[in-house]
Amino acid sequence: MTYQVAVAGASGYAGGEVLRLLADHPQLDVVAAGAHSNAGEYITAVHPHLTAYGDRRFTPTTPEAFAEADLVIMTLPHGQSAALAAQLPAGQKIVDLGADHRLEDAAAWEAYYPGPHAGTWTYGLPELPGQREAIAASTRVAATGCYAVATILALRPLLDAGIASPEDVVVVAASGTSGAGNAPKKNLLASEVMGAMSPYKVGAHQHVPEIKQASGAASISMTPLLAPMPRGIISTVTAKATGDVTAADVHAALVKAYDGEHFVRVLREGQWPSTASTFGTNAVQLQGTVDKDSGRIIVTSAIDNLGKGAAGQVVQCANLMLGLPEAAGLTVNGVAP
Amino acid sequence: MTYQVAVAGASGYAGGEVLRLLADHPQLDVVAAGAHSNAGEYITAVHPHLTAYGDRRFTPTTPEAFAEADLVIMTLPHGQSAALAAQLPAGQKIVDLGADHRLEDAAAWEAYYPGPHAGTWTYGLPELPGQREAIAASTRVAATGCYAVATILALRPLLDAGIASPEDVVVVAASGTSGAGNAPKKNLLASEVMGAMSPYKVGAHQHVPEIKQASGAASISMTPLLAPMPRGIISTVTAKATGDVTAADVHAALVKAYDGEHFVRVLREGQWPSTASTFGTNAVQLQGTVDKDSGRIIVTSAIDNLGKGAAGQVVQCANLMLGLPEAAGLTVNGVAP
Amino acid sequence: MTYQVAVAGASGYAGGEVLRLLADHPQLDVVAAGAHSNAGEYITAVHPHLTAYGDRRFTPTTPEAFAEADLVIMTLPHGQSAALAAQLPAGQKIVDLGADHRLEDAAAWEAYYPGPHAGTWTYGLPELPGQREAIAASTRVAATGCYAVATILALRPLLDAGIASPEDVVVVAASGTSGAGNAPKKNLLASEVMGAMSPYKVGAHQHVPEIKQASGAASISMTPLLAPMPRGIISTVTAKATGDVTAADVHAALVKAYDGEHFVRVLREGQWPSTASTFGTNAVQLQGTVDKDSGRIIVTSAIDNLGKGAAGQVVQCANLMLGLPEAAGLTVNGVAP
Amino acid sequence: MTYQVAVAGASGYAGGEVLRLLADHPQLDVVAAGAHSNAGEYITAVHPHLTAYGDRRFTPTTPEAFAEADLVIMTLPHGQSAALAAQLPAGQKIVDLGADHRLEDAAAWEAYYPGPHAGTWTYGLPELPGQREAIAASTRVAATGCYAVATILALRPLLDAGIASPEDVVVVAASGTSGAGNAPKKNLLASEVMGAMSPYKVGAHQHVPEIKQASGAASISMTPLLAPMPRGIISTVTAKATGDVTAADVHAALVKAYDGEHFVRVLREGQWPSTASTFGTNAVQLQGTVDKDSGRIIVTSAIDNLGKGAAGQVVQCANLMLGLPEAAGLTVNGVAP
Repeated sequence: MTYQVAVAGASGYAGGEVLRLLADHPQLDVVAAGAHSNAGEYITAVHPHLTAYGDRRFTPTTPEAFAEADLVIMTLPHGQSAALAAQLPAGQKIVDLGADHRLEDAAAWEAYYPGPHAGTWTYGLPELPGQREAIAASTRVAATGCYAVATILALRPLLDAGIASPEDVVVVAASGTSGAGNAPKKNLLASEVMGAMSPYKVGAHQHVPEIKQASGAASISMTPLLAPMPRGIISTVTAKATGDVTAADVHAALVKAYDGEHFVRVLREGQWPSTASTFGTNAVQLQGTVDKDSGRIIVTSAIDNLGKGAAGQVVQCANLMLGLPEAAGLTVNGVAP
Repeated sequence: MTYQVAVAGASGYAGGEVLRLLADHPQLDVVAAGAHSNAGEYITAVHPHLTAYGDRRFTPTTPEAFAEADLVIMTLPHGQSAALAAQLPAGQKIVDLGADHRLEDAAAWEAYYPGPHAGTWTYGLPELPGQREAIAASTRVAATGCYAVATILALRPLLDAGIASPEDVVVVAASGTSGAGNAPKKNLLASEVMGAMSPYKVGAHQHVPEIKQASGAASISMTPLLAPMPRGIISTVTAKATGDVTAADVHAALVKAYDGEHFVRVLREGQWPSTASTFGTNAVQLQGTVDKDSGRIIVTSAIDNLGKGAAGQVVQCANLMLGLPEAAGLTVNGVAP
Repeated sequence: MTYQVAVAGASGYAGGEVLRLLADHPQLDVVAAGAHSNAGEYITAVHPHLTAYGDRRFTPTTPEAFAEADLVIMTLPHGQSAALAAQLPAGQKIVDLGADHRLEDAAAWEAYYPGPHAGTWTYGLPELPGQREAIAASTRVAATGCYAVATILALRPLLDAGIASPEDVVVVAASGTSGAGNAPKKNLLASEVMGAMSPYKVGAHQHVPEIKQASGAASISMTPLLAPMPRGIISTVTAKATGDVTAADVHAALVKAYDGEHFVRVLREGQWPSTASTFGTNAVQLQGTVDKDSGRIIVTSAIDNLGKGAAGQVVQCANLMLGLPEAAGLTVNGVAP
Repeated sequence: MTYQVAVAGASGYAGGEVLRLLADHPQLDVVAAGAHSNAGEYITAVHPHLTAYGDRRFTPTTPEAFAEADLVIMTLPHGQSAALAAQLPAGQKIVDLGADHRLEDAAAWEAYYPGPHAGTWTYGLPELPGQREAIAASTRVAATGCYAVATILALRPLLDAGIASPEDVVVVAASGTSGAGNAPKKNLLASEVMGAMSPYKVGAHQHVPEIKQASGAASISMTPLLAPMPRGIISTVTAKATGDVTAADVHAALVKAYDGEHFVRVLREGQWPSTASTFGTNAVQLQGTVDKDSGRIIVTSAIDNLGKGAAGQVVQCANLMLGLPEAAGLTVNGVAP
């Protein structure tokens, strides 16, 4: 059985990665690759790596262009998804990578985003307890923010196991540059980025409420950094131990939480996650320990920000919503070195 | 129909890429991943990106370990393939990425390689005229050198079309660092390579006789450079025009040569190849023109040195030799950005 | 007035950077560049960027080779400085970049380093209160660890101002690859590092006791990461506020602490440190704020790990010890982009 | 004796590098740092690495703002220098990094540049025979193009020595991204460039006539590539030998041509140039040999495109024009690794 998928926002980096995954997906076809200013252009003029698209062109981003789609994937700038979704038929399935419909709490939305809260859809992180079934039963799914995926999957098992305090979680995470999109800006030029690491949005990142909602944390300090690499997020999550916790306890909590999960891998003792190992995949690598001096629990996670952090998880949700094998068209084997 | 494949040299970068491709290949299974000093270790201890291999371990590199393989892929250091091949049954199919069996001329071998010439196998570049059929009919195939793939595919159409002279071809090509392997050396350290470009083996690269043999060139000056990127080869090939040749003539010669080829793409006018577009693929990008000042023909090609330059072409040959679809398990869509 | 300087460990990256700074220093000359296995080789064979050394060669690392030096700079592997220092005349000034003589507490030494504690020298961080004068009056100075420089300078002003708690400090810091030295190892190969971020020594970094000693912190969780760049450290330091602390309070504490300091720059509001801005310098960039969700104070610092993190601070100390202008031969202007 | 220098185009990368060099120059002071849209802004808002400029701001680019300058350095987009120069007093010395006044032949100008030819100034490459004296005697100097510096210095000694033919020279050169400036463009984003090499302006680069004029070459095919590094040019220059030429002959021709030159270094046999070794310097590294298969002479040169390729040579020319030591404020020691 093959389904038709439309992509809104296909000229961006996340949209391009969706197109890449769908081009080699055994059961999903791209019926429309929607863009705005690029509508009408060759897909390969914007994404020269997507050889399979040959002479195909971007379509406009309209309900008409997407009419034949069984499912619409939206990789639009934050705030634009709600308006488009409102124009699509209620029965047309949607996975939205934008932040518009992730938060349950309107006040949390208003604290970090402009404009009114658009409502809440099913949260698209299948590895959370009960969430896989909820996604499969939904027509509207709000996929997870890139830093949020990496941080929630590292943090929640600690809280669920009761070994970490939900208060005073500290997260420092670094992302590759594709997370900042492909609109030209001076600070994203190769000349500026190569050889450089620097923080941004310090003290107020918009993924904080989403991480709290999905992990159960009560307070999070999160500092993001831009790293000189095209892809990848590495998130270092530290939390206070609730008692006498060992590295083995941390490892066991992670292993238990992800037993049987295809895309999440708790590494062997002594191995630590590397973004390179997740390049091009929907995989998550995790490892944890306890700090010698402070007794804090430290868990590090690595993902591909365009994979499990964006296009990969979106295709994973689409597979679930359409009744396909969850891993169809997705890999856990990184393109390395 | 599924076939069993053994890999000799699976702990190197090219071997790791073969394992990656086979892990997601619909009709080929890895029956043994042979190594030397790493035999007995977890595959993921050496290749932490190959999540699918879980708890599997490297085997020794012996005929016994490979006994159940329908086909053996060798990614061994140059000079070691011949000895191993001699121990394998005559009917067991082999694709060898080493240089041992590429050259027809023993004198050419001796001019660039140590030790005696081991003989000649079918040359594993399916896009050459007649070669696809020869490979499909062979049990022993010698795959192509990484620089050679990029250069031959750029050069031969010019000579076949009679628009370029076979004399005085000049090639300057840059490779990512994975082409130099994963044995630790100071000049390959990240600290040394990032921000650096430098030439090596200037004036005497061992791929020259192979390029001449497969392209028909009479004389080649080839200078390789090490580039600060993990993968990719970009080859700039220039040749003297035989007469009044235009950019359109060059483009037409390339298009004609690769009409219908799945992995070779002659770009649209104005687009030039980029290694990034071929990252993780078996694809080749080509573009050409005529130099304004000198009248020389210039053709640039881009490949992934571990893809079409190594593991990709090897899997492509294996597919042909086993009667599978030539593109099975291979993609043309690069992992970019 | 010109002084003679000998360098022990001149074939490593830190030693090479010392040679670079001394080559263009107006009042310091290199009388001997000591090495072990490289003794007798051309300096430019190991450091091809140090053009000014022309046909000079490395000397052995012996008291005889260093006899004419007014001051000896040691950039040896941790644990080797003490043995060499014991052989040098008591009046010969020494700046040691090794960890051997940094710690006051023998128990702290033993918790993180092998071998017995060698004793304590003047701690070589001139920007700490009173330390400039102590260094100028010393013949033996123990320079600061690279992560320690970046972290102490960010943290101590918060504790001195009483706005941050010394308990439960959390530090996540990323370093360029030159911090790991130039001995060839697989995990430091360019192929492995480019595109990759990964943590190491998680939960137990040897700079923790040094940071506590020099900053007054009571408990520190520190996680270091390897970043895909040749140089630079970015340290994100978070600490609990002691009361109702604002971003302006944090900024004011930093400004007050470094008023008049030549090498430390607290950035304008809205600007955050970048390792690129400190490339090739002895400069430190700082900026801070208060986290919106958690109320934690966040201060980020950037240095060149081979500059203020190693060779730069060593030359700064040498200048002080010899009565030269503190900034002689050192710059605050980064080589960027 | 100290002189006042004004910089026009100080907000670009080349202009920023001029500011960096002048900040640490013992005898030149920056009296005005002129910009257009950035006039009035802090210099460190655009160049956060130039710590020494503190609270200084960009000035407008006008004769009034530059009135007190003994010498004006222009790093403007090609075509803008002539208009500004026409407004400055005839006695005010100018070094122009733009192409406007480099070419002697108006037809050559018109073949590669838009607009009318503005006339010819003294060519600012002091290492050419007789040129050092010409520059010192000039009030108007046209500095050399970045690819031109690297290529001319590699090529001319071969032609002067009569060992290479001026016909059919083939050049392939790669540049770091700073050569493309700091105006934001999608193809220059870090996401696009890291991991990528690609050619541009294939077959028609504007530096070709300049190289021919200054080297004596009759015909040049030049292909430039963009490399994933912030700085550096590596130029591979090949030319047909005029007879039976050996590697020793090539080496000897280079050594003879640059005997006594402070900034040009012909490497020892076996060493080849690397851009990393020239990072942040005004140095040139050269090495050559003869190709085994074709007999072509191959010479490779490395420079910092912002150093000897731009700001370094401009300061070198300014030193000569003002009667200062030629190397004042310039180094030959690269910032590496």
